[in-house]
Amino acid sequence: MTPDEFRRAGHELIDFIADYLDTAPPEPGGPQNERSVATRPVQPTVESGDVRAALPEHPPTAPEPWEDVMADVERIIVPGITNWQHPGWFAYFPANISYPSVLGELLSAGLGVQGMSWVTSPACTEVETLMLDWMQELLGLPAAFHSTSESGGGVIQGSASEATLVAILSARHRATGGAVNADGATTKLVAYATSQSHSSIEKGLRIAGIGTDRIRTIAHDENFAMRPDALRQTIDADLAAGLTPFFANSNHGSTSSMAFDPSPEIGAICRDHDIWFHVDSAMAGIAALVPEFRWVNDGIQLADSYCTNPHKWMGVNFDCTTYWTTDRASLLGALSILPEYLRSAAAESGEVIDYRDWQIPLGRRFRALKLWFTIRMDGVDSFQERIRRDVALTQDLALRAASDDRFSVVAPHPLNLVCLALTGGDEATDELIERANASGTALFTRTVLDGRSVLRVSIGSHTTRAQHVDAAWELITRDV
Amino acid sequence: MTPDEFRRAGHELIDFIADYLDTAPPEPGGPQNERSVATRPVQPTVESGDVRAALPEHPPTAPEPWEDVMADVERIIVPGITNWQHPGWFAYFPANISYPSVLGELLSAGLGVQGMSWVTSPACTEVETLMLDWMQELLGLPAAFHSTSESGGGVIQGSASEATLVAILSARHRATGGAVNADGATTKLVAYATSQSHSSIEKGLRIAGIGTDRIRTIAHDENFAMRPDALRQTIDADLAAGLTPFFANSNHGSTSSMAFDPSPEIGAICRDHDIWFHVDSAMAGIAALVPEFRWVNDGIQLADSYCTNPHKWMGVNFDCTTYWTTDRASLLGALSILPEYLRSAAAESGEVIDYRDWQIPLGRRFRALKLWFTIRMDGVDSFQERIRRDVALTQDLALRAASDDRFSVVAPHPLNLVCLALTGGDEATDELIERANASGTALFTRTVLDGRSVLRVSIGSHTTRAQHVDAAWELITRDV
Repeated sequence: MTPDEFRRAGHELIDFIADYLDTAPPEPGGPQNERSVATRPVQPTVESGDVRAALPEHPPTAPEPWEDVMADVERIIVPGITNWQHPGWFAYFPANISYPSVLGELLSAGLGVQGMSWVTSPACTEVETLMLDWMQELLGLPAAFHSTSESGGGVIQGSASEATLVAILSARHRATGGAVNADGATTKLVAYATSQSHSSIEKGLRIAGIGTDRIRTIAHDENFAMRPDALRQTIDADLAAGLTPFFANSNHGSTSSMAFDPSPEIGAICRDHDIWFHVDSAMAGIAALVPEFRWVNDGIQLADSYCTNPHKWMGVNFDCTTYWTTDRASLLGALSILPEYLRSAAAESGEVIDYRDWQIPLGRRFRALKLWFTIRMDGVDSFQERIRRDVALTQDLALRAASDDRFSVVAPHPLNLVCLALTGGDEATDELIERANASGTALFTRTVLDGRSVLRVSIGSHTTRAQHVDAAWELITRDV
Repeated sequence: MTPDEFRRAGHELIDFIADYLDTAPPEPGGPQNERSVATRPVQPTVESGDVRAALPEHPPTAPEPWEDVMADVERIIVPGITNWQHPGWFAYFPANISYPSVLGELLSAGLGVQGMSWVTSPACTEVETLMLDWMQELLGLPAAFHSTSESGGGVIQGSASEATLVAILSARHRATGGAVNADGATTKLVAYATSQSHSSIEKGLRIAGIGTDRIRTIAHDENFAMRPDALRQTIDADLAAGLTPFFANSNHGSTSSMAFDPSPEIGAICRDHDIWFHVDSAMAGIAALVPEFRWVNDGIQLADSYCTNPHKWMGVNFDCTTYWTTDRASLLGALSILPEYLRSAAAESGEVIDYRDWQIPLGRRFRALKLWFTIRMDGVDSFQERIRRDVALTQDLALRAASDDRFSVVAPHPLNLVCLALTGGDEATDELIERANASGTALFTRTVLDGRSVLRVSIGSHTTRAQHVDAAWELITRDV
């Protein structure tokens, strides 16, 4: 592909994306532009194997023109994707992207640099550190997370799963005084979390050699929040058995029901026993951009590590998880390895950050660009407006459900997620979810809370407005 | 940012990238376009802290226009990056990008879908599976890696480090019969690799709870290749000590010197002892796109897992590591966790692949697009031409060095890397590297081979031509 072919194709693709993400009709009240995500079903109608069958089984032997590739994108790829940017997106979690963020990802791709060490691309490291400091300020996080603090700092991880794993590895290193790097002994280490914790907690622990025999599922209360008394009792029993409590996870906004564990109490217990205290606020933490929602971070002053995802509610393209720790030394102890071919005077001076030692992989993209672009060009006011709107729409929906005796609201709904069940029982709820999702106009996720089937309504797509929530309610309540 | 602002900014950014990556002067023999990477120093001249100091310490309170952001990109970011796409790039490894690949990354960003499960975006999974099958065919890999094979298959990982970790976790699961998921016991497991293995081997093992006490550094021969006799002896000693050999790594093109371990022999030993046999060909494996270089994969018929990086020599933007295993069951056993909110009929039918269970994180981008775009639009011929050219340039440089008595060629150089030392000793070599890198016209990496300081010359940037290698040789030989 020549530079001029790239220019032409690139301009076309930019226009395609502009249209795809634009859900406002060109003329107020008129029809949508036909490439808009809003004109498509949320969930594609393809069956397993359909997409592959539409493509050649074998690679081409000669280069093909852009036109053919783009035609396949429109004919095969777009009808085969689930439209996470759809205004009827109430499933899983919001995975918002934004125009500035797409530009940031494009620039990162076009520069093609590696940020594994400061010296391999200084701007990649320094903009990232600055962005973590900006986010610390915007979210009102503890000063101990700032890059200029004595022992803390932040980094962009690819996902909350990786942030969790890094936290667990830091905890494992500290609890063993670093011995784990030589002896690999992990079988006495015990971790604590509720059943409402994200699957990445168990996955990360398993990867780190902490099996289910050493993962304690701490009882939760009627709000799906951890019971501190149960935590304390379990720790005491483990200590009495000669085990080593080393890691506790606190959910600030759990995946299934947006439950908040009581971090002030959990953190205090962890301090008493030198247990690494991790706060997982992957989805909800971004709400702290809004002053009246800063309570989502209550108790994180006690945390050894914390993560939240600009790639969910803030509109920065996946992958962009912001992770902070107050114990940089344990992180570096867990993950640093310095072969000859990565040595540099800059690294050895201790004056620079080499982010490869803050993460699982070695290589890394210039992900800070998309965060920088989004904060600068969309601006904080736009994030606040979105979050306030989503929460208001959710509260409104919860009110409607609460006053409709066909429905139960089965968990607290302090932010942008409401969990509903039909009073008619699980089977009716499951059928409702299936029927609603088959409509193509909205998509919901099913979960189970304390054994009960639940319809989760997550409101947070950047294109969702009141009329889409109204339509979703109409869809949910039709024929039940 | 409005759709129209995005269009305008996007077109400008596309043009900027077209110019940045274009190293051919607009008029033959005329001056470069001034935005070309070729007009810049390879290594930026910034000191630690310079980039950050040029940016505001605090986030803006109101949105800023695209013009201001782009001005900062040109004024602060570009002069602060190391130019991995420079024609004078002889450092680390080639990290080639290509125009089609940038477009693929852009489309992935613009669609904003999540490919964690088939159902969360069917096309994301199915195109990926097809791309792994295309690559299996293009590289001439074993049929047991194909998605239609009985027990194998492939996946895109973010990096070779993650591929290695996934291999180790699969091996750990198989060696313990899955017991590790419950008991976390890893202290009897022993892993084998040479000192020439990439740092990600030790890092991955450490993460998985295999400490340095259980990592055997197997002796290498004068070509920096593993000695199978030493491997066999070490395994025997470990078995006699009641330990469990579980994982061996074979380098096909090591990072420091492009050494090839003898996989036919290593693989046979691993088969004898049911040791997971992983082949790490992160850089060199792509050479198998060229028929006469298919030998780079000799012995991988015996491998349980294998990885190579399209994001190095093939021109697909980082991150794109292709990873295959012949033992899908161990991989899924190691990494599957299925919470209620991720259940789907499609997944439970067993008819679809849920790639979240093939990797460390949960979330995943639509990375297959950039591989698909690059194969279709640049084409296999272009990859073969680049690889043949790079190898020829490297052989030519090695000949020049071999016939110059100031230099020693200190390792075999079968592909695109040549390792040089000054006969004058380590201090002279170190000074030479420092002086050459300070020139700004080329960048090299220093390594150490069997205690000796070495100048690595890695030839593989997509913009490097004979005149750049000539200039590099002139630079290296000046004043020595």
